[in-house]
Amino acid sequence: MATTIAKGVDASVYARRYADVRSFTERLCEPLATEDYVVQSMEDVSPTKWHIAHTSWFFETFILKPYQPDYVEANPAYAFLFNSYYTQVGARHCRDRRGYLSRPTVAEVFAYRQHVDTAMQDLLESDDETLVGRLARLIEVGLHHEQQHQELILTDIKHVLSVNPLRPAYRTSDAVAVKLATAQNWVEIPGGIHWIGHEGEDFSFDNERPQHRVFLEPFALASRLVTNEEYLEFMDDGGYARPELWLSLGWQAVEENGWSEPFYWEKKNGWWSVFTLGGMRPLDTAEPVVHLSYFEADAFARWAGARLPTEAEWEVSVAGISRAGNFVETELLQPAVAADSERGGLQQVYGDVWEWTQSQYLPYPGYRPPTGALGEYNGKFMCNQLVLRGGSCATPATHIRPTYRNFFPPDATWQFSGVRLARDA
Amino acid sequence: MATTIAKGVDASVYARRYADVRSFTERLCEPLATEDYVVQSMEDVSPTKWHIAHTSWFFETFILKPYQPDYVEANPAYAFLFNSYYTQVGARHCRDRRGYLSRPTVAEVFAYRQHVDTAMQDLLESDDETLVGRLARLIEVGLHHEQQHQELILTDIKHVLSVNPLRPAYRTSDAVAVKLATAQNWVEIPGGIHWIGHEGEDFSFDNERPQHRVFLEPFALASRLVTNEEYLEFMDDGGYARPELWLSLGWQAVEENGWSEPFYWEKKNGWWSVFTLGGMRPLDTAEPVVHLSYFEADAFARWAGARLPTEAEWEVSVAGISRAGNFVETELLQPAVAADSERGGLQQVYGDVWEWTQSQYLPYPGYRPPTGALGEYNGKFMCNQLVLRGGSCATPATHIRPTYRNFFPPDATWQFSGVRLARDA
Amino acid sequence: MATTIAKGVDASVYARRYADVRSFTERLCEPLATEDYVVQSMEDVSPTKWHIAHTSWFFETFILKPYQPDYVEANPAYAFLFNSYYTQVGARHCRDRRGYLSRPTVAEVFAYRQHVDTAMQDLLESDDETLVGRLARLIEVGLHHEQQHQELILTDIKHVLSVNPLRPAYRTSDAVAVKLATAQNWVEIPGGIHWIGHEGEDFSFDNERPQHRVFLEPFALASRLVTNEEYLEFMDDGGYARPELWLSLGWQAVEENGWSEPFYWEKKNGWWSVFTLGGMRPLDTAEPVVHLSYFEADAFARWAGARLPTEAEWEVSVAGISRAGNFVETELLQPAVAADSERGGLQQVYGDVWEWTQSQYLPYPGYRPPTGALGEYNGKFMCNQLVLRGGSCATPATHIRPTYRNFFPPDATWQFSGVRLARDA
Amino acid sequence: MATTIAKGVDASVYARRYADVRSFTERLCEPLATEDYVVQSMEDVSPTKWHIAHTSWFFETFILKPYQPDYVEANPAYAFLFNSYYTQVGARHCRDRRGYLSRPTVAEVFAYRQHVDTAMQDLLESDDETLVGRLARLIEVGLHHEQQHQELILTDIKHVLSVNPLRPAYRTSDAVAVKLATAQNWVEIPGGIHWIGHEGEDFSFDNERPQHRVFLEPFALASRLVTNEEYLEFMDDGGYARPELWLSLGWQAVEENGWSEPFYWEKKNGWWSVFTLGGMRPLDTAEPVVHLSYFEADAFARWAGARLPTEAEWEVSVAGISRAGNFVETELLQPAVAADSERGGLQQVYGDVWEWTQSQYLPYPGYRPPTGALGEYNGKFMCNQLVLRGGSCATPATHIRPTYRNFFPPDATWQFSGVRLARDA
Repeated sequence: MATTIAKGVDASVYARRYADVRSFTERLCEPLATEDYVVQSMEDVSPTKWHIAHTSWFFETFILKPYQPDYVEANPAYAFLFNSYYTQVGARHCRDRRGYLSRPTVAEVFAYRQHVDTAMQDLLESDDETLVGRLARLIEVGLHHEQQHQELILTDIKHVLSVNPLRPAYRTSDAVAVKLATAQNWVEIPGGIHWIGHEGEDFSFDNERPQHRVFLEPFALASRLVTNEEYLEFMDDGGYARPELWLSLGWQAVEENGWSEPFYWEKKNGWWSVFTLGGMRPLDTAEPVVHLSYFEADAFARWAGARLPTEAEWEVSVAGISRAGNFVETELLQPAVAADSERGGLQQVYGDVWEWTQSQYLPYPGYRPPTGALGEYNGKFMCNQLVLRGGSCATPATHIRPTYRNFFPPDATWQFSGVRLARDA
Repeated sequence: MATTIAKGVDASVYARRYADVRSFTERLCEPLATEDYVVQSMEDVSPTKWHIAHTSWFFETFILKPYQPDYVEANPAYAFLFNSYYTQVGARHCRDRRGYLSRPTVAEVFAYRQHVDTAMQDLLESDDETLVGRLARLIEVGLHHEQQHQELILTDIKHVLSVNPLRPAYRTSDAVAVKLATAQNWVEIPGGIHWIGHEGEDFSFDNERPQHRVFLEPFALASRLVTNEEYLEFMDDGGYARPELWLSLGWQAVEENGWSEPFYWEKKNGWWSVFTLGGMRPLDTAEPVVHLSYFEADAFARWAGARLPTEAEWEVSVAGISRAGNFVETELLQPAVAADSERGGLQQVYGDVWEWTQSQYLPYPGYRPPTGALGEYNGKFMCNQLVLRGGSCATPATHIRPTYRNFFPPDATWQFSGVRLARDA
Repeated sequence: MATTIAKGVDASVYARRYADVRSFTERLCEPLATEDYVVQSMEDVSPTKWHIAHTSWFFETFILKPYQPDYVEANPAYAFLFNSYYTQVGARHCRDRRGYLSRPTVAEVFAYRQHVDTAMQDLLESDDETLVGRLARLIEVGLHHEQQHQELILTDIKHVLSVNPLRPAYRTSDAVAVKLATAQNWVEIPGGIHWIGHEGEDFSFDNERPQHRVFLEPFALASRLVTNEEYLEFMDDGGYARPELWLSLGWQAVEENGWSEPFYWEKKNGWWSVFTLGGMRPLDTAEPVVHLSYFEADAFARWAGARLPTEAEWEVSVAGISRAGNFVETELLQPAVAADSERGGLQQVYGDVWEWTQSQYLPYPGYRPPTGALGEYNGKFMCNQLVLRGGSCATPATHIRPTYRNFFPPDATWQFSGVRLARDA
Repeated sequence: MATTIAKGVDASVYARRYADVRSFTERLCEPLATEDYVVQSMEDVSPTKWHIAHTSWFFETFILKPYQPDYVEANPAYAFLFNSYYTQVGARHCRDRRGYLSRPTVAEVFAYRQHVDTAMQDLLESDDETLVGRLARLIEVGLHHEQQHQELILTDIKHVLSVNPLRPAYRTSDAVAVKLATAQNWVEIPGGIHWIGHEGEDFSFDNERPQHRVFLEPFALASRLVTNEEYLEFMDDGGYARPELWLSLGWQAVEENGWSEPFYWEKKNGWWSVFTLGGMRPLDTAEPVVHLSYFEADAFARWAGARLPTEAEWEVSVAGISRAGNFVETELLQPAVAADSERGGLQQVYGDVWEWTQSQYLPYPGYRPPTGALGEYNGKFMCNQLVLRGGSCATPATHIRPTYRNFFPPDATWQFSGVRLARDA
């Protein structure tokens, strides 16, 4: 939520982007049965229906109601049902009870969405270009918010389908061809004062600002992500049975949850398979390991004689690297093998898996959240969460930036989260 | 589960009854949206979809698989998903996770139901009348089991809809006309040795047998059910704030759950309204109070200077009374006012609300559960539950008997449960 | 709490009995270290210190404060700290936090006890014999209450010491000599109308009254208690792994608690030993099995092709049998082997172990609790508890009667509870 | 746990320091009753008895057993009972069950302590000065470890006594005289590259090393701690009722725990009083506010238009300031009023209260934990904890350093934790 105001905005660009982003959400829902939209399989997961409604509620609450005097709410009760956590805009339904709501039905939720879309298109096509200019930043926030929920729709429905003993697929697709993983090299980065964080007119979330200086000692990053094969070595070496490899809270999580392999892995008759959005598949050892908690990523790094990077190290290292990668648009919906074994430098920086850093999610020096309810978007979560970087195979390509800070608690496993190693130089 | 074998059974009667009972279940589902079938709003509640499947699983497991050699299962995984609690027929899905299953879809569950119905109709129309004769008792059990789940479909969907802030109606219908409640009289019953329990060829559950003698002191039963008006007097007299009126566990439930009125009651602007299957309605003070826990029924009786009847007292008292009443077939789906204020004797014995007794649900002297998995139907629940008698406005009329023993834990409130007072003579 | 008033009471008898009972409590404390008095090892257990104080509070609250106008409380805060569950005499400290109180110290608690004793002795030795006569029933209640806590002091300290990895003994003593258990016979009892319950001037608790008639079918009781050897056969036959032997709640308890042997049993190097008040000892297979929950007693009986007796069956059967037995005064503090293998009839009726019955703890017909706070003594616990009969090796001999009804929830294991089988005749 | 080896150690210095530190622990126990040693009032709290034993176990485990071949354990079971969290030296008793242990008694625990002390004094007075030289770092760790537990003994016993409705004092003492708090000024610190962390021969914990550079923007620190008066203004301004002032997890803590004032505050008849180690006292508004969680400290700072300092800002700011302060040796055992209102610069830097920083407890760049079990001392706790700086009124004066990093989870309130504000320059 950058604080500057966009100038010279072409409203038609926003209308088109709005239509594109919103319709992509709907496209992600196409494979779902009506029943799939309803289930909340754990507190962190929201029903798809709720995502569809909440993203619409966002535009309704932050743009239509304050700035469109003629706007009529689809249903006043929705303000309660579909507010996620914004205390400054009113009361809200308990998060852990989202799966108790059979109504509004899926059809009613899509009608609500259409109601909001119609009003938004009216606004975006209004003659008052000044209005769109003034709202440009809010529209950007709404669209990037929508993209965040696109990724959550996929990670949440993956969880919902996975707890079903039938292990249904979200969408059947051909398995990704197995390739050999490239060798891992170390890419050395010099120490000194570096700038990190976002600056300028381009959109960023408030938590990426202000740009500021950090002092780094020399370090090295692994050229690629850790693979399933490497993670299996950790497991075979007793990784899940050796408390000395784990943070204290991590070992507690191992014991309480009975962890002995990554989330979504299952062993039958001596063979590992994994649950994917395409259903159960044999484990591809060359693929990047995914769905690790921070605790597992950290333990693996310690076992490997390395460590996780800090977010500043990560950001400094990726300067100048192309933002191409295996994003949601490839429709693989699983991390894929690093393709370019010959090229030097860092690979798989963007897409594939979110990379855990050892950095707690804290405000940057000089950080100020926006005033009003949107100030709750990021700032209030800056405690007991770790930063992840780089996007995943479920992230929209236009959503990611070098400065982008994703964040989750250290025991979260249902996101597409993996590891890139670091070490002191 | 009577132990005798039916003789001279007319198979066509069973085919017709099977069709009638099964189609009535489906009729109860007609008002539901697809989404309504999926939700489990608390552990005691099962999704409608699960009821639809489980009742079919029952016929498949106890009749088709053992007695129809050609029968092919619709889906082998369903044996796991739709077994409720029969340990002797295999493993089963956790009860508290029934709401996590979006698949099989509603359409798939109805297809499964149709698959079982087709096989059952083949069996019931088979030339081998001996077979139907031999299976008559099992078929009876299956149909009465289905009727139990018909009531549960209604009480469970009522709970599901009630937790939704939108308070949607299961089916809109006109409110029941308000009538004055009849005066309450005491009907005196002499003491001595009485026979209770079921005997003979007619169907009963195993827990109603054997017929046996009990010695009763003289007592009196109230001529009708306790009304909302009477219960409001209890509340106005501090009923929920006076621990001396409550059992120790009951007072604990009051404090832990913050009870201060019956379940489904809501006060707004000084007026009480209640959630019904027809949506929110103003409280009708003349109607029987309903959705009481045993603890509330017991505290009310203590406050009223009376007590709850024992199940033996209840059964002895209703001898010879017509089994007519406000059952599910009236489609009121709420208890109604006692109509016949002039008639003497006990009124509202059957239908309207299940009447809590002070009798723990224990085996009758000489009780033997059937051998095999069906022995788990009733016997293993004979601990920490109280007996209720008489059926409710959600019970099928052909399901109830004077000897019928329903049972729930003392804190259960989501059933149509109410109170008839008793006292020593 | 009988309702009649004692006549012609000899006050000196009460003074002597008071002194005897109170000093016996203190004698039970002699082996304890100061630290032992403080610990609460689970919610059901109270620190010894609390028992010492609470039994004094009882005399203070129900006799000294209402009937001794000059009585001055030792410390007004004690009314809050040492009230167990009497809501009508004021607020009280949370039960599950009794182990958080280091103060008052043990010495202070004994000083409080002495303060009450002095005032009580003044009262009992007062010239006003009428007073003692009027208070006779309350004094009786207070002394029997004290005796109940004498047993609880032993069962609670046993639990406290058992959770300590050092497994310290309450008091070292020689092991009981091993004898062969007598053969089990069946003692047949005819059916018909029987009287049970207490009548007359002698003390009883309110829950034993009124005397009333019950109708029993013919039945048989086992001549002696079930032994460890017999229970081992049940275990060897997979008793803890066969859900069909268990009540549904019982099986749940097995799974949740991981039960695979009786409480206090430990297996090391293939040999069973048990924790006793004398420390760890090898299992004596001839001794009665003890520390069973109702669930285990019930499952064992089902496995044995028998059942548990009802409390009426038990009471009818023991008519005329001597009240001798292995009580706390023998100081064995463990159940012992049935000594008289030649004598016919029922053995081990009193003492050794409390015998689980299948009877829920319910009010007798015509039961009325006393008015006032003492009405909370028994009546409010009449829900979800099972009756046990006959007293144990930790019960004072003068405390037991044929009509005595002890009661605990079905999962309780820390009492000296065992099994006598019954069957239909 | 510095990695270098002490040279030219004078063994007699260690013998004297050992005796001093150990005897100070015992002095802290003098006001306690035997019963006070036993209680564990919440999982974070350990019984005093346990602290007395655990600190002895530490010397036994890390020095006597590995380096004194003749050493004989006092009791082999103690290795299990008194190991806190060192997985590499064996199994240990559950932390949340430390209050279940009445044995070993207090006397036995002190005998164990004496046993260790005798062996340690033998070692420290041994002729083999090389040995002491080699063990110097371990001895230092043991003594600093003991000092940490000295503070915990006080904070834990404060909690134990506070949950007792009698609110007993640890030690009665005169209240601190009330003085006016000095005005708060802002002390400006220039930005740039700074060195933080410990370097050199002097003792430090491993988590303070290595010394390294950080880049800081210019900032300012408050000249003194926040007072009760200022905190009351926050409360009067609705501080505990305004979610927009809180971190999301902080607001959750407010709601779940019902926080509406600092821990240990009680309001009666409109007046605030606080529980102290000297018992209940009227709130002194001029004293520094203490027993705040991080969440409260953070919300207060946000309300005040300021923020919490980072640990680097704190460390850089205190360079050159004297290490004097209100430590445990003053025996006030409460924070006191800043005395020197005229002096410029930072006041109350050391002692009084630990100062929450906004810095998560993370490894310094280049951090390596020691090998072996002592590597578990600090490193494995580097997740979801916040750094506190400066020591408190319960910290031994010789225990603190400018580089010292204390750490607790953000909801901890039972430590002497308070706030110094910071802001961007």
